[in-house]
Amino acid sequence: MKKQSEARNLSMVMDLYELTMSNAYFVSGDIDTRVVFDVFYRKNPDDGGFSIFAGLEQIVEYIENLHFSKSDIQYLRELGIFDKKFLEYLSEFKFKGDIYSLPEGTVMYPGEPVMTVIAPLIDAQIIETAILLEINHQSLVATKARRICKAAGKRMVSDFGARRAHNVDSAVYGARAAVIGGVSSTATVLAGQMFDIPVSGTMAHSFIMFYKDEYTAFKKYAEMYPDSALLLVDTYDVIKSGVPNAIRVAKEVLEPMGKRLKGIRLDSGDLAYLSKKARKMLDDAGLSDCMIVASNSLDEFTIHSLISQGACIDGFGVGERLITSKSDPVFGAVYKIAAVEKNGIFEPRIKISENVGKITNPGFKMLYRVYDENGKAIADLIACRDEVIKDGEEIVYIDPKQPWKKSKFTGCHFKPLQTKIFDNGIYVGEKKTVKEISDYVKKQLDNEIWEEEQRFENPHTHYLDMTPKYYKMKCNLL
Amino acid sequence: MKKQSEARNLSMVMDLYELTMSNAYFVSGDIDTRVVFDVFYRKNPDDGGFSIFAGLEQIVEYIENLHFSKSDIQYLRELGIFDKKFLEYLSEFKFKGDIYSLPEGTVMYPGEPVMTVIAPLIDAQIIETAILLEINHQSLVATKARRICKAAGKRMVSDFGARRAHNVDSAVYGARAAVIGGVSSTATVLAGQMFDIPVSGTMAHSFIMFYKDEYTAFKKYAEMYPDSALLLVDTYDVIKSGVPNAIRVAKEVLEPMGKRLKGIRLDSGDLAYLSKKARKMLDDAGLSDCMIVASNSLDEFTIHSLISQGACIDGFGVGERLITSKSDPVFGAVYKIAAVEKNGIFEPRIKISENVGKITNPGFKMLYRVYDENGKAIADLIACRDEVIKDGEEIVYIDPKQPWKKSKFTGCHFKPLQTKIFDNGIYVGEKKTVKEISDYVKKQLDNEIWEEEQRFENPHTHYLDMTPKYYKMKCNLL
Repeated sequence: MKKQSEARNLSMVMDLYELTMSNAYFVSGDIDTRVVFDVFYRKNPDDGGFSIFAGLEQIVEYIENLHFSKSDIQYLRELGIFDKKFLEYLSEFKFKGDIYSLPEGTVMYPGEPVMTVIAPLIDAQIIETAILLEINHQSLVATKARRICKAAGKRMVSDFGARRAHNVDSAVYGARAAVIGGVSSTATVLAGQMFDIPVSGTMAHSFIMFYKDEYTAFKKYAEMYPDSALLLVDTYDVIKSGVPNAIRVAKEVLEPMGKRLKGIRLDSGDLAYLSKKARKMLDDAGLSDCMIVASNSLDEFTIHSLISQGACIDGFGVGERLITSKSDPVFGAVYKIAAVEKNGIFEPRIKISENVGKITNPGFKMLYRVYDENGKAIADLIACRDEVIKDGEEIVYIDPKQPWKKSKFTGCHFKPLQTKIFDNGIYVGEKKTVKEISDYVKKQLDNEIWEEEQRFENPHTHYLDMTPKYYKMKCNLL
Repeated sequence: MKKQSEARNLSMVMDLYELTMSNAYFVSGDIDTRVVFDVFYRKNPDDGGFSIFAGLEQIVEYIENLHFSKSDIQYLRELGIFDKKFLEYLSEFKFKGDIYSLPEGTVMYPGEPVMTVIAPLIDAQIIETAILLEINHQSLVATKARRICKAAGKRMVSDFGARRAHNVDSAVYGARAAVIGGVSSTATVLAGQMFDIPVSGTMAHSFIMFYKDEYTAFKKYAEMYPDSALLLVDTYDVIKSGVPNAIRVAKEVLEPMGKRLKGIRLDSGDLAYLSKKARKMLDDAGLSDCMIVASNSLDEFTIHSLISQGACIDGFGVGERLITSKSDPVFGAVYKIAAVEKNGIFEPRIKISENVGKITNPGFKMLYRVYDENGKAIADLIACRDEVIKDGEEIVYIDPKQPWKKSKFTGCHFKPLQTKIFDNGIYVGEKKTVKEISDYVKKQLDNEIWEEEQRFENPHTHYLDMTPKYYKMKCNLL
């Protein structure tokens, strides 16, 4: 595995205001004050019932590598807006804070703190842009990938999106996120190399068009890759030319070698109709083990439609609509100040808004996932940091959408969702492989998360409840 | 300026099939055959009338740096699908072809070859993914930026998108593309540093929430940046608190220093209503020179609507909907084989499709932009590579959408749109700054491109005509 960021100084990936604010804090002498920032988001993409938290590994790399080189300082000096002593301070800067975070791959819901930074003011401020950018991108693609895999059921899904990605990182980290969300392989070689994830691919139309005819092209490819060839059958005419030539190669080239044709790929036309027609032709030729893979602007909606039409498709290559999350390409996680330390105590801060949905959850808090006796996650719960929540005990809670009702959790298990990953600037979290993260996603969705939250149409809204003490603190601030 | 790619080996940013096809070509002994590939796209984003060609500089960097390191070869070997001699060949590989391209920033239209690669088979094949990814990303954002700037008219537009970008490159190269499209500055510091483009920014809600009250925060910021402070007025209440505190700072802090308040920023609520109300309050306080900048999920549609409502906004900070091109986040440029060299002659190749729009334009060809006597671009024209098209002469052409009509260009200037940028693997093009590219975009749109093609609603479709000789060749292949 190679870490892309080792070769790159990404410290300057930040909004200018992170630095102008920090400069002002520095000059005001406020830099030792510790503050609490929460990362949270407001809405699941595609009006889904949940999202998948992804991008943490790259945030950790960013923070561990965060430093300003001589040329960075030189550039900032030339902008002519920074105090000289502040630039000296930056040139020695290393992140000194604590960070708590959901483990990567955790199922998450709107409004809850997925990551919490407790750090001196400047340390907390300047990591904002990189944290948001990474969570927003990878969580978006992981969540989209999960939707697509859900629609595909047991059929294999591969990421073919690099060429339509929003530049290199979007392709590479998008492939990583797609695998976290459930995709089984990527066509992007660099992603395979960097994250040790399976790579796959078929062939392009150019390969077929290079040779004098389709049969010759198929023959060359099958001879080269007798175990893995997926022949692309739509360059000229799927039914009249592509499938017959693929069958001929299976019979005349592969069978004499003792091999079976692995599959064909359809990349245009009516995939439902063509796949059924191709399936019949393959079956009639004794090639019922030959897979049919489909591609061409697919997503969870087209895949669902194809399957409901009885399309005979065994795997999907998904490109642009996965890698850009085309139907909803913005994941809007934000980074908001929640508390400021005064005399050793974190005073809560709240942002008021005319839009009630934009009012923040103030203070340094705890986030629990609440499980019933069957291990199903029935709600998430926000508590004050110092509250004691014990497994199995009766815990009174308030649903802030209907605060007049007081209800109780009984016999539940309360799991703190955040774990400490940075302690005084030192990474103390675990290192996980992409495969481990992907398995963790699957385990939660198979065992803990209600099926009703996973459907596409009007999914159940997961409850985000509050302890009475926390709710009272918030109301007092308002 | 620092080149990001100098520190990065991006050679492996490719689809696996580029390498599996190349391996098959290598083993078949076909690697010296030269081929022609064209890059073209099929549809303008947001149903616009044109797009802006961007990303060329990064493609050039990619191709110049293209090499496979020892660890790349080691990784490929471990995949177990490549011929040993092919991997040796790759370890010495350098690009050896010719490339013709539109200059970066050229206004382009669907269906025309914007870049043409003439190279030995493997050289031409393996650069596919990187070329498409770069053009698709940067052309998308440049085109979106131009639409947003068009809607904003003479008002300044800044890129605030980094946090919602699809990872780091999307933020950084997206900022570059946004400036090419007409945006005047970016908040993304690394983009400013890499491309020598102006950086700008205001302040975050956290700055205001850190201090004991809004006035104190504004005062600190204004004292620090008396010439450039843009005060964010919506943390608590725009009209009751934000604007009055900004006015107080202008009077009590800045005026005694002999300074004027540069501006305020609105980031939520009804921007039309609030901006008019704030304008009146500022004017009444004698601050008619204080700018009002607006942000919050803006794009060309919301900006157009705000302006038509008479909103008093002097500048826009545009984030997620620019950096992801939210309303249409996929730019679908493709890379298709157009000819194969046989005995020194390029034999044309065509891809047939049941979808007429997906049939390719075959052959090694010339692309001209046709200007009338006023310097307006009235059409683009595809000709065979060896045809002579002379300025001012009568040139018969065919509109392939109505081929029964034969018309003539008379008194026109025919400008070849592509120029040679690689000769036998050596870059022979010009180096342009982002500012120069951006100026070139503006010059074309101000002087050459019809206003009818620039409107958002049902824009005029630019003609892509063909010479009779070229058209006949294409029909013969079909």
